This record gives sequence, C-alpha cells and structure tokens, in this order.
Amino acid sequence: MNRRDLLRAAGALGAMAALPGGAMAQRNLEGAFPTPTKKYRRITTEEAFATLPQLNGFRDIGKYLDSGSDLSFTQTLLGDSSYARDMTPRLLNLGEGRIKEMDEGGIAMQVLSLTSPGVQMFSPDTAVAIARESNDILAEAIRKYPTRFAGLGAMAPHDPKRGPAEMERAIKQLGLNGFIVNSHTDGGYLDEQRFWPILEAAEALDRPIYIHPRSLPETSLAPFRPYGLGGASWGYAVETGTHGMRLLFSGVFDRFPKLKIILGHMGEGIPYWVYRFDHMYNTAKRNWGTGSLKEAPSFYLKRNMMITTSGMFSEPVLKYCMEVVGVDNILFAADYPYQDNREASAFMDAAKISEADRIKMYSGNAERVFHLKV
Amino acid sequence: MNRRDLLRAAGALGAMAALPGGAMAQRNLEGAFPTPTKKYRRITTEEAFATLPQLNGFRDIGKYLDSGSDLSFTQTLLGDSSYARDMTPRLLNLGEGRIKEMDEGGIAMQVLSLTSPGVQMFSPDTAVAIARESNDILAEAIRKYPTRFAGLGAMAPHDPKRGPAEMERAIKQLGLNGFIVNSHTDGGYLDEQRFWPILEAAEALDRPIYIHPRSLPETSLAPFRPYGLGGASWGYAVETGTHGMRLLFSGVFDRFPKLKIILGHMGEGIPYWVYRFDHMYNTAKRNWGTGSLKEAPSFYLKRNMMITTSGMFSEPVLKYCMEVVGVDNILFAADYPYQDNREASAFMDAAKISEADRIKMYSGNAERVFHLKV
Repeated sequence: MNRRDLLRAAGALGAMAALPGGAMAQRNLEGAFPTPTKKYRRITTEEAFATLPQLNGFRDIGKYLDSGSDLSFTQTLLGDSSYARDMTPRLLNLGEGRIKEMDEGGIAMQVLSLTSPGVQMFSPDTAVAIARESNDILAEAIRKYPTRFAGLGAMAPHDPKRGPAEMERAIKQLGLNGFIVNSHTDGGYLDEQRFWPILEAAEALDRPIYIHPRSLPETSLAPFRPYGLGGASWGYAVETGTHGMRLLFSGVFDRFPKLKIILGHMGEGIPYWVYRFDHMYNTAKRNWGTGSLKEAPSFYLKRNMMITTSGMFSEPVLKYCMEVVGVDNILFAADYPYQDNREASAFMDAAKISEADRIKMYSGNAERVFHLKV
Repeated sequence: MNRRDLLRAAGALGAMAALPGGAMAQRNLEGAFPTPTKKYRRITTEEAFATLPQLNGFRDIGKYLDSGSDLSFTQTLLGDSSYARDMTPRLLNLGEGRIKEMDEGGIAMQVLSLTSPGVQMFSPDTAVAIARESNDILAEAIRKYPTRFAGLGAMAPHDPKRGPAEMERAIKQLGLNGFIVNSHTDGGYLDEQRFWPILEAAEALDRPIYIHPRSLPETSLAPFRPYGLGGASWGYAVETGTHGMRLLFSGVFDRFPKLKIILGHMGEGIPYWVYRFDHMYNTAKRNWGTGSLKEAPSFYLKRNMMITTSGMFSEPVLKYCMEVVGVDNILFAADYPYQDNREASAFMDAAKISEADRIKMYSGNAERVFHLKV
C-alpha cells in the first residue's frame, strides 16, 4: 500500500460505513446487542487510531525487517485482506465515521491512543518524529471534536531526552490527557533505569501512562508461537502482565509514588495473582532477604495502577476485580476498532452492580485520572 | 551434599520436627491458623516429595550444567541454607514426620508427586531409571500408609517408548493414581506430536496427568528474570499456563477426548481469560480461517481439565473459578512442603460456600479422578 492508497483508504471510510454489507457487516456477525441507553456518559479509554506517518513508518520498516510478530501485524494493516479493508480506514478515521460508530455504541467520548506498537519499532529519530506528527494529528481531532475525543500522547521511550520533552509538549501545549507505551521497547521495560526519565515526566505532569500490549520480544517467543497464542488470546497478556509485574516488584513506585500506570484487559492477568505474588514476595524476603519494597506488591497495584475493561467483557472478571483492586481503579474501555463498542456497552449496562459503581467505571474514574472536563 | 549427607538429612526429620525452633519455627512465622475441624476428609493433591535417586541426579547434573533457574532450585535443595535444612528432609520424608504435619493441618490424605522438575532435566536414560526407582519408593510408602498416601507416577516424557511403559507399570503394577509432568521437557510441550504417546497412555489408563510448574525455557526467560519473577510469583504460572493453553488450542482433546489434565495454582491463570481466548479464537477463525477445534477452547477447559487450589488460598479466586469452570473441576491442594497445610485447610474451611461444594473440592472430586478408595 503506497501513500496514495493510504490516503484513499482514509477517505473511503465514510463510503464503506454507508454501504450495506460493507464495513459494518463483519461487526454484525458478533450478534445483536441491545441499544445502549442514553443515561450514562460512557468514556472508553483504550481506543486505537492510526496516522499516515505511522502507517508509512510501518511500510518502510517492512522493507528491512523480514520477520516478527509485531511486524506481521503492522504489515497486515497495510495489506488488502478484508480485515485490513475494514480495519485500516477505521483506524485512520478521526472524524464522522468514527463518531457514527461511537453513537451506535452509546460512547460519549473516546480516549484515543496510537495503535500498537505505536512508534516503538522505529529507531529513536524516526520514533520521535512520528510521535510528534501523530500527536499533532490527535490534538487537531480533539480541537475539532472536544466533547467526543480525548487522547494519550505517543513518545519515544528509547530517547531519554526527546521522549520526556514530547510528553511535556503533549500535555502543556497540546492539552492531551496521558501517555501511551506499547510494552517493551527493544526488549527493555520501563522499570529499567534508562527509562526512568519517562516515569519521572509522567509523575511530574500528573498524567497516567497506559501500557498497551505488543508481542513478546522475538527472542522469548518460541513457547507462545503455536496456534497463534503469541497474540491477543494469550501472549499479549503475558508480555504486558510481565511489564506490570516488573513495575510492581522493582520499587519504581517507591521512587515515583504519584505515578499512575494503566493496564488494559482487566489488568493483563495481574489481579488474579494478588494473593500469590504477595505471599511469594514475603516468603522470599523472609527466607532469602530479597525484596526492598516499602510495602507489599499489591499495595502498589491499588495505589499506582488502574485497569480497564478493554476486550474483557466478562461480568465474573469485573466483579472479581471490583473485589480485589477496587471499583475506583477500574476504567471502561472497548478497544475500538478491534472490539465492538456495542458489546462493551451492553456488557457494562447489564452488569449486576450498583449504579454508583457503574458510573464510576463509565466516567468518574476516567474524568479524574485523565483530567477530563466534566 | 553427598549420599551419606542426604541419608542423614532424611533421617533427621523426626528430630528436627521435635526441636523447639527447628523445622517448625519457620512455618509458624506465617501466623497462627485455626485448628482444622475433624468433619472433612481433606485430600491434598499437589504434594511434593523427593527421593534419594532424584537428589543424587540433581547433584550430578550440577556438575556439568552451570546455569539455569531449575538448576538453581535443585542445587538449593542440596545446599545447607536454613531453607534447605528445613525443606529437603521434609521432601524426603514419606513416613511419620510427614504424617504428623498432615495431622496438624487436618489432611487425611496426600496425593504425592516427585518434586519439580521431576526427572525432566535428565537425559532419557537417566530419567527413565530415576522415575522407575522413585515410583517404587512412592508405591512402598503407599503400601505402608494406604489410608494416608496416594501418588502420581513419574515418567520420562522424552522417551516415547519407555515413558508410556512406565505409566502402565505405575498404574497396573504399582497401583498409582495418575501422572506428574513438570511442564516443558527440553523446551517441548505435550501438544507436540512426539509427546502424544504420553497423552494416549494416560487416556487409555484412565488416569489424569498433573502438569506442575517449572521454569520457562532459559532461552525465553529474559523478560521474566528480574526481581525473581521467573519463579513462583509469576514465571512458573506463565510457563504452565502456556502449556495448558497450547493443549486447549492444539486439538489434542479432540484426538484424546477422555484425557484429563490437572493444573495447579487455580489453573495457572487460564480461567481468568476464558471470555477473551474464546472470543479471539472465534474472531481469528472468522477473519483468517484459522482454528480447527470441534468446540471453543473453553469447552475443553471444562471437559478435559481440572484445577487445584495449591498455593492460591484466595476466596475471591475460588469463587470466580467455581463460577467459570465449575465446582466439579476444582480439587483441594496445599503444595506441601512449600506451602502450609494449616493455611490451606483454614482457607477452605472458612470459604463462604455450600457444604456440598466444600466436600466435592476436599474429597469427592479427588476420589473420582484419582480412583481413590472412598
């Protein structure tokens, strides 16, 4: 797909959405969902978009890399499968086509983030440039639709000077609401000291970092590769959950006590393990003198992390998480366009929970952590 | 530690347990637990033991391997830390010392298995020999204490002839109750065709395979290594959960429909992901034509897998699992001697569940799947 094709794809969304059996048909295969009521301000918080600079970067990287799970995903978006013909224009659309789908799903506002793996496959120079261009495109969309869009700024985590500088620009000049990092960067994780400038900037700017999945580093991927398990059915959660666990165990939350990290997919499995990892942390500390955290790891999960419902529309999981991490730490999210807005809303509308709790997850918690206008 | 030291350690347990501040002191640091009532037949199902042939094998392998997480664990058991002085004699004890601790925790019966990584670090020849010797030792303990012990047979998964032969001997001649496999063998997983003879034998013998954790393959371990996360606080679950997911997605349960696989630690995270992995399996099938299972992956989780409470004494997790995998698929387990029998019983005694459900998990389900005398 060349630049002209991309532009054509971007322009085509309106037409595709209007065609019977076009872009919408695939989504209807999920089955019918009840029409969302109008009584809630539903804010979704892990909602993907792409920009032409990013897709051009993906196209260029395909010329000199010849394998890799993330590469495969990005090349799929550039291809001409029916999946790409559906998905890529919707990712690129930051206007009426997207808003029409939000309305169908009862979504008042999307907190947008550059689709995975963001700029993290690119060299620092390219990553810095594409993050900047993409943040400008995002800010322009928010200026045009200030009641419908908010957004997380992209940055190059592997540039310890220009990464934090772009974070400051994103908040102070562009008015964005937080940051997006797509898990590891060249096999490095944010607990490592070389990335602390990113954590320091987020804390200083009082905005959260959303850690979105990408593939495990290729060097670790062998056991996860069969049956497509390296992706959204398992491996993404292993990668991103591991990232979260490293942050919890590393002491970065003692160093940056006001830092907020958000994990999608109901916390990438971490909440399931609260009992065990605290127990094992304490056992190791007692037996071997390891561990120098001021508190047990679960303390930081509750103080410094939030989780979202993206792609996990399961009431048993929701209730479990409300019990172990608390309703104030749970944000509503759909994962548009990869998941269905209407299913997300139908799930949260139907959950047997109190109205006060539902409103916190739909809007109150997001308004607070992202500093959104109420 | 030479063979004489090991024998001395094995003999020392009685004395250590009787000493104030000896082997018991460390366990008391966990805090006091209520004395278990006598009203239940509590059967624990992931209870470790070691044999001298196995420990000698660990000692020998330490001579020619010089790194590796599992190696580090096995060498710890052979060392003279206070941890090893407590743990190794308890692992070796298949008599009164162990039974005394079972009584303290209200445990009627332990289903024993050779401690991780079993025989799977050894070459096939050595693994076959040590599995056979260890199964004989296990069978002898069961003959001596038939109301207190049952056991899972070890075998060499990497020997496609002698592995299944030992499985047949373990059931038909020794009267054992199932099998133990410690996750990967040389980076290979049981879904791979070379291991199908193991699955075929288990199905034919109508006994379950318990897949116990070990470390991820060293080649995949980099992201998990910091802060001890490669072990029981995270990496073991990633490894063993991945093993389970591979089985669910591979189609082996269509090929071996009566095969039963048991996963400890409340299913190694898999139950948390039921909604998402079914959804992703179905999405991939629709978009890309992948996937040839007769049913959705979660169908096999409920039909072909069981989970245990080993080391996961969390009521919210228990209730979540009762809802998503069903009480008939949950077995009680402590993970002795690594975890505390008394804590395990106190947790299950106190859980706010029906008496009928508690009894199923304490004994009924284990009696059924392991063919135990009622």
